[in-house]
Parts: sequence; C-alpha cells; structure tokens
Amino acid sequence: MIPKNHPRYKSLLLREKIRNAYESGFLADTGMIAHGRGEAFDYLIGEKTTKYSKIAIDASAISLILAKNPVLSVNGNTIALVPNEIVELSKLLDAKIEINLFYRTEKRVDLIEEILKKSGANEVYGTNSDKLEYIDNIESPRATASLNATYSSDLILVPLEDGDRAEILKESGKKIITIDLNPLSRTAKKADITIVDNIVRVIPLLIERVKFYKSKDKEDMIKELERFNNKENLKKSLSCIKLS
Amino acid sequence: MIPKNHPRYKSLLLREKIRNAYESGFLADTGMIAHGRGEAFDYLIGEKTTKYSKIAIDASAISLILAKNPVLSVNGNTIALVPNEIVELSKLLDAKIEINLFYRTEKRVDLIEEILKKSGANEVYGTNSDKLEYIDNIESPRATASLNATYSSDLILVPLEDGDRAEILKESGKKIITIDLNPLSRTAKKADITIVDNIVRVIPLLIERVKFYKSKDKEDMIKELERFNNKENLKKSLSCIKLS
Repeated sequence: MIPKNHPRYKSLLLREKIRNAYESGFLADTGMIAHGRGEAFDYLIGEKTTKYSKIAIDASAISLILAKNPVLSVNGNTIALVPNEIVELSKLLDAKIEINLFYRTEKRVDLIEEILKKSGANEVYGTNSDKLEYIDNIESPRATASLNATYSSDLILVPLEDGDRAEILKESGKKIITIDLNPLSRTAKKADITIVDNIVRVIPLLIERVKFYKSKDKEDMIKELERFNNKENLKKSLSCIKLS
Repeated sequence: MIPKNHPRYKSLLLREKIRNAYESGFLADTGMIAHGRGEAFDYLIGEKTTKYSKIAIDASAISLILAKNPVLSVNGNTIALVPNEIVELSKLLDAKIEINLFYRTEKRVDLIEEILKKSGANEVYGTNSDKLEYIDNIESPRATASLNATYSSDLILVPLEDGDRAEILKESGKKIITIDLNPLSRTAKKADITIVDNIVRVIPLLIERVKFYKSKDKEDMIKELERFNNKENLKKSLSCIKLS
C-alpha cells in the first residue's frame, strides 16, 4: 500500500502495476528494466505532458482517424499500464489491436489476450491462433505481423517499441506513431509521429482528442496534419528535458 | 548468449547480470527497475567515465585511505554487478563490508553474504547474525546499521543508495561517498563526494587509484582533497549529459 500523500505516489503506483504484470507472467524481466529507463526520462521532463507532446498527440489523433486500417500494437508494458484505455481507443477508432512481444511466449500472449478480452476487446490479433507473416520476408521475430492487422495496415501505433521493429515497419512503407519517453531512441527518430510522454498520460488524452477531431471536416484535418513536422517537434520535445 | 559484436554488448551483459541476480533471489524486483533508470542516465553520459567522475574517484580514493573506519555498504544491485571488486577494494583499504538492503529479507541477506564469502571476504557486517542498531534512534528500516561497521564509521561508500538513507547518514554526522548515475538524485546532492558514473567502471578505477595514492604523502593527499568541491564537480558532471 502506497500512501496517497507520498511525493512519488503516481510513479510508485505505476511501478506497482509493472511488478504485478511481471508476477502475473505476461511481462518479461527486461520489461521491468525498460520501465526503469522510462522512469528516468519521465523524471527529466518533469513527469508531465509537454506542449510538444500535445502537438504530437493531435497529429496522431488525426492520422488515426484518417487511416484506412489503423492498428494498435500492444506489448507487456502497455498492457500492464493501460489495458482498458487501449480497448476504448480501438473501439473509438474502429482500429485493430495486435499483440506483438519482444520476448514472445505462448503463455504471455494468452495472458495478454485474456486481459484485453476482459477489458472489453471483441477481437484481438497476433494471438497464438492468428496467422502471422514475416514482413518483407524478413525472417526475424521482430518482423512478424498478423496478416489481417499489422501486415495489411497503413498506420500502426507502436508504443514503447524497440528500434529493430520500428525500422522494419518503416522500411516496409508503413506509417508509424510511437510513444517513447526517450527522445533519442532509434524508434523516436524513425517514427512518423513521436509522442515523447508517458503512455499513462498519452492514451487518455489521445482518446479525448480523437473524440474532438472525429466530428471535424476532413480537409481541415489534412491541412492541420500537413503543418506537423515530426523532426522539429521531436527536437523541441528534447529541449523540454530539464537538467536542474 | 549475447554476440560480442552487438552494439549494445556491454549494456546487455550488465542487464544479464541483473536478471540473474533477480532469478537467484537476492535482488528485489524494484532493483531491476532501478537498473533501468541507471541505463537511461548512463546512456545520456555516453556510457563512459567522464573527467569529473575521475576527479570524484580520486577524491574518494584519498578519503577512503584517510578514513579511520571506512565502510563499503552493499546492496543487491552492487553485488549483482561487482562482488569481486568490492571484496578486493575492502582488502586494499582494510574497510568493512556491510550489507544494507532497501527491501531487506533474511534470504536476500544470506545469499549476498554467501556471494561475498565466495568472492573472498573474510568478514561481512549487516548479516542476519549481526547486531543492528538504529542510527540516532530513528526507528526506520533505512536507519539500521551494524554496531561495528556503519554505526561507528566516519566514512561510508554508499553506491546506488536511496535518498532517505543518504539523508539519515549525513544528518548523523557521517561522511558519505556515493556512486549514482543520476546527478539530480537526492543522494547525489546529499553526498560529500558524488561519482556520477556506472559502478562497473568506477570500482576497478577506484581500486587502481587507491593503489596509486596509498604510497603518497598524507599531507599532499589532504591538500588535494581540500581542492575538491563536490557541488561544483557535480554541476560539471551534470553538464556531461548530452542531448543529441
């Protein structure tokens, strides 16, 4: 039990979720180490959503609304932190959810599928019964994709993703949005839209912005998206790191 | 097995040691998350020993040689990464080794004692059979100290230490040296000497510098130590973080 008045309350609560996910068996041990890296970078941006994160979230909301076959790619860390929010977002966008794990085991995939179903997901891709293909015939575990989801998608949200997979997806011609607290990571640099922020703050805000843009004029949205420059926004996100 | 030509070989090797420590049962799950935070900060300083780390290491070597009853405080992360080096340093300095864990359990303490003994330590303090006292009668698990080691020590090396304990030690009038990759942490700010560097690089270098200074004139060492300004050096360590 973490006392609510603890100065690190929010951070400790997330840590608790990560520990529970590991104990439940669907998060790899390296997922805990990855969470620690995230904690460090979140600390450096002041543990809040910056102006540039908000700009990237708006560009993401528009892109996801305009996409033909958007996919939300989920891993252990994402499911440990925001399972319900992912399902809500997928329904709002009519987007597919695909499980893609760095350390894929049947057990982990089954557990995550179960959590997503309990959170209200009707269909989940990338499961043990799904048909997985290698993107561009790259026979790497990082290149697998569900034939009916990522493989045939034009836009994939890949939060907390490793650089190898981000690269494979980009090189196959897909657009990707990432949520990554490290603005210097390969994934952050490769993505079409990079949200430098904590996923627990991003997904609820993304849901809000998708709701906002859904009723807007398509041409206006396209124009707004054209004004977004990821390279520039990423640079500004980096400048939000405070070293004092 | 990690291929030696992997660009992240060294980092992955350390990660492997941390995983093994967790699986062996002497590292808490939060120790894995803490390692992740360290990875992020190490990445930001370029994963190398900076000029200011070397300056702090020299000041540490001198201070440890001059101390009356120096103690090396060890926790799960330290033992996961540099058990043999800690024992070598303790022998060189005739310094005591004390186990002090954030999440203390009898099992973890026993396992760490066993590793230290296997690494050649003659005596280990802070074990389950040792007499622990509360520093300044503060009845907190972070205030416990072996009567014959930390409790009666004038200088304690507390690598990878939490802010609460660093504060208790400082307020009880002890001098502390810390090794902390986060130059903004409470421990980094509280310590008399702060080495902003990875412990796996620090301890071998510290051993080398203790060997170097051991034969030097005491007055010269005192003079050199007087020139060291931790606040200033820490500020310069912070400036080594490269955001590009």
